[in-house]
Amino acid sequence: MAIHSIHDAIHRFEESQSKIKALNYATSMLFWDASTGAPKSGADARSKSIGTMSGFLYQLTVNEQIKEDLTLLMANLESLDEIKRVSVIEAKREYDKLTKIPMDEFQAYNELVSKSAMVWEEAKEKSDFKMFEPYLEKVINMLLKFADYRGFEGHPYNLYIDDFEPGMSVDQLNVFFDTLRARVVPLLQKIMDKKREIPTDFLKKNYPKDLQDQVSRQLLSLMKFDLERGLLKESVHPFTMGVDIDDVRLTTHYYENDLASAMLSTAHEGGHAIYEQNIDRKLQQTLLATGTSNGIHESQSRLYENNFCKSHAFISYFLPYLKSVFPEQLKEVGVETFYKGLNKVEPSLIRIEADELTYSLHIMIRYEIELGLIDGTIKVSELPSVWNQKVKDYLGIVPSNDAEGVLQDVHWSEGLFGYFPTYALGSAYAAQIAHYMGKEIDIEDCLSKGDFEPLTKWLNSKVHQYGALKKPNELIELITGERLNSKYYCDYLEEKFSKVYEL
Amino acid sequence: MAIHSIHDAIHRFEESQSKIKALNYATSMLFWDASTGAPKSGADARSKSIGTMSGFLYQLTVNEQIKEDLTLLMANLESLDEIKRVSVIEAKREYDKLTKIPMDEFQAYNELVSKSAMVWEEAKEKSDFKMFEPYLEKVINMLLKFADYRGFEGHPYNLYIDDFEPGMSVDQLNVFFDTLRARVVPLLQKIMDKKREIPTDFLKKNYPKDLQDQVSRQLLSLMKFDLERGLLKESVHPFTMGVDIDDVRLTTHYYENDLASAMLSTAHEGGHAIYEQNIDRKLQQTLLATGTSNGIHESQSRLYENNFCKSHAFISYFLPYLKSVFPEQLKEVGVETFYKGLNKVEPSLIRIEADELTYSLHIMIRYEIELGLIDGTIKVSELPSVWNQKVKDYLGIVPSNDAEGVLQDVHWSEGLFGYFPTYALGSAYAAQIAHYMGKEIDIEDCLSKGDFEPLTKWLNSKVHQYGALKKPNELIELITGERLNSKYYCDYLEEKFSKVYEL
Repeated sequence: MAIHSIHDAIHRFEESQSKIKALNYATSMLFWDASTGAPKSGADARSKSIGTMSGFLYQLTVNEQIKEDLTLLMANLESLDEIKRVSVIEAKREYDKLTKIPMDEFQAYNELVSKSAMVWEEAKEKSDFKMFEPYLEKVINMLLKFADYRGFEGHPYNLYIDDFEPGMSVDQLNVFFDTLRARVVPLLQKIMDKKREIPTDFLKKNYPKDLQDQVSRQLLSLMKFDLERGLLKESVHPFTMGVDIDDVRLTTHYYENDLASAMLSTAHEGGHAIYEQNIDRKLQQTLLATGTSNGIHESQSRLYENNFCKSHAFISYFLPYLKSVFPEQLKEVGVETFYKGLNKVEPSLIRIEADELTYSLHIMIRYEIELGLIDGTIKVSELPSVWNQKVKDYLGIVPSNDAEGVLQDVHWSEGLFGYFPTYALGSAYAAQIAHYMGKEIDIEDCLSKGDFEPLTKWLNSKVHQYGALKKPNELIELITGERLNSKYYCDYLEEKFSKVYEL
Repeated sequence: MAIHSIHDAIHRFEESQSKIKALNYATSMLFWDASTGAPKSGADARSKSIGTMSGFLYQLTVNEQIKEDLTLLMANLESLDEIKRVSVIEAKREYDKLTKIPMDEFQAYNELVSKSAMVWEEAKEKSDFKMFEPYLEKVINMLLKFADYRGFEGHPYNLYIDDFEPGMSVDQLNVFFDTLRARVVPLLQKIMDKKREIPTDFLKKNYPKDLQDQVSRQLLSLMKFDLERGLLKESVHPFTMGVDIDDVRLTTHYYENDLASAMLSTAHEGGHAIYEQNIDRKLQQTLLATGTSNGIHESQSRLYENNFCKSHAFISYFLPYLKSVFPEQLKEVGVETFYKGLNKVEPSLIRIEADELTYSLHIMIRYEIELGLIDGTIKVSELPSVWNQKVKDYLGIVPSNDAEGVLQDVHWSEGLFGYFPTYALGSAYAAQIAHYMGKEIDIEDCLSKGDFEPLTKWLNSKVHQYGALKKPNELIELITGERLNSKYYCDYLEEKFSKVYEL
């Protein structure tokens, strides 16, 4: 009898998961369409469609039958195989997240963040933090209230980190950012003291779009992204969308006066896309056929972008190809010049324009502030001055207004707390993974031949194939034998930039 | 109490219609994506998604609540405004269609046509009718059985015509095709007897794709299609998709050795697209915001393609522009030559390659055969010989095999009976509408100036605005004061082709 009902519960569970997958597929396509050329005038019809789909999604995720089934299955996890077990645990997590908060408060919150994001946009435009302040206060208050409903261990911020990086905690992040603060800030200071001028003007000549597109495709093909099972298109902001193992799409954005931007964003999105494309087929019909967390996903994009494509070895291979495409523009540029230009360090105010080294400091600033806002040691009204002080302390520069300071990112206005740290975790995971990969493969040798196959295959077997079956901590331990250790990231940055700047 | 429950029923009805609309939107986008560049490898995931969506659609269309509500609302139609009244009648029609056939037989039918379409594809490839014969027999038998379930008046074929052209009947179609047989067959004979050679070689030079795209956009803009509220892309087979009044998309297909193909298919799809784009906004949130029938939709595409863009007046305006885009290719081509080349008559075996005059004869052949298959006067096994005889009788040529004969179209393999006649009805409606338009507007004068505005505006107010609110017969009567009258179509063909061939 019990076995019979478990069997039925699994059957219903799998059926509803498969429907959720099909709905997600359609919703993703609406986003893809919206980002790659849909007429603006159709936005209303599209958002109505998305709204209806999310209604169906809610019905599938939260109902009496699934509640019963999940209770039964959670009590019998040991009788399930690994895929079903992890799927059930994930579904229960999602169920709790959606049901522990009273529906009316959740709706009020959705309306608040929608309004808040609009106010943020105007506030940023006018560089007027006061305008945005009351909204941000309300968002944080609701998040704190929700934390109580949902329950948490230790710091309430743990809950929000866990939404994006399952298993990560304030304790782990504090150790991580402490190391960064201790090693990267002085490294940047040394570089600044060196006052070395690195030219980048050759990257800013005229680079026609169609030829840049050719370069992006060549790069993807070298990286072993299978363009037959995917698409590359252009959009305002580059992104990757894996709707199915056999349908993974990425975008880039071409600037005709900038060679590096599209090339590096293609390498970055390509890293995400290769991850999605190489998940084990036994996960294909489940909701586990996706990256396991923001941080691990970001580790794959950073690996291809920074560790691989911006390496001296790869540039020595790739520059001759680039010269064949852009003979005039790159006529007098050597490997050393190109490599250094691509890796120039320059503290700047805007996160999304930051170089590889200073990027993590931008994230550190946001982490410290998020933590302070959640535990009450920083007041919203103090934000602009706290922000400017931290930028001055860590980057040595000061924003001239809030638009290029505390108002620059949309995340907080949308209630996205706990999201920023995953950007820095990505780079740290990448360095740690690359360190262990280097014990088995001569990475530099591969890159100097443009031969990504051993690298991509290694990542396929160590990272990609698992999809969301292994959680981040588990995965990192499995690959490297230890948990996240920021030592590798700091070592990597020190080694790389000491060479670039001849410290 | 009764008023209260009617009010509730309307509210539920409108809510479910709005959800159906949102689902249709998403499904259409999947189709759009599949036709305009999606990787082939993603087909499985896409069809799973489409399958799930159609499951949701079925749930929304057929359930106990909607059954009750429709019964109540059908009994109180007089208390509803026109839009609600027509929406309810349509929903009831759809409900009956989906519920009168036992579910298991309907599923068996769906499996049959899916299999049958695959067999047809192979049979066509091998030009082997025998292979396809048993499937077509089964499809027809099931359609006849379904006709009994669904009920019909007069001829069972009435039911299937009505699915595509509501209100149309075998009686009306017999009169229509009798006139065509009596007037178009002799007209074609006269043209053939004239043995006049019309050159078309200048249309077959090299016409680069990007320049053809420019021509298509120029044409759409002249026709008053609003490209800001729509899209033009390329696909294998041109089509139009109106997902919303503010988001109407069309495709064309460019052949670099053919100037006419993309240009005329853009004019054709543009006609469909202008219809979808100009439906009254008060219908925007309803399922009536679409063309009222296949035939009326086709009348709009034929009007722009044949009556407008292939007219002498328009060519005299447009050729100088074409010459500015293709100075070399069209150097020595005059208006007369271009016009005649575009309107050349040449009996051919393949429907989709037929010229304007012979096209309707291809449809007549299919109509006669469909009618015979449904009423049993033609046996499936006789099809190849019946087909070849009719092609000989009406077009004066004989297929050398079944691939270019009875096997050329996919429709019957998919159970699409009653669909073909709407292609010919479209041209006939177009001629009748143009006749009455000509009483109010100097069409030739407008076309000779490339000024479509008065024409498109007239159609906006007479046809487009109504969407599916008025049924075909009602609409044609409203515009022309009479029902479909094939006289106008035959007059138009005789007048036009007598001039082209100087009869």
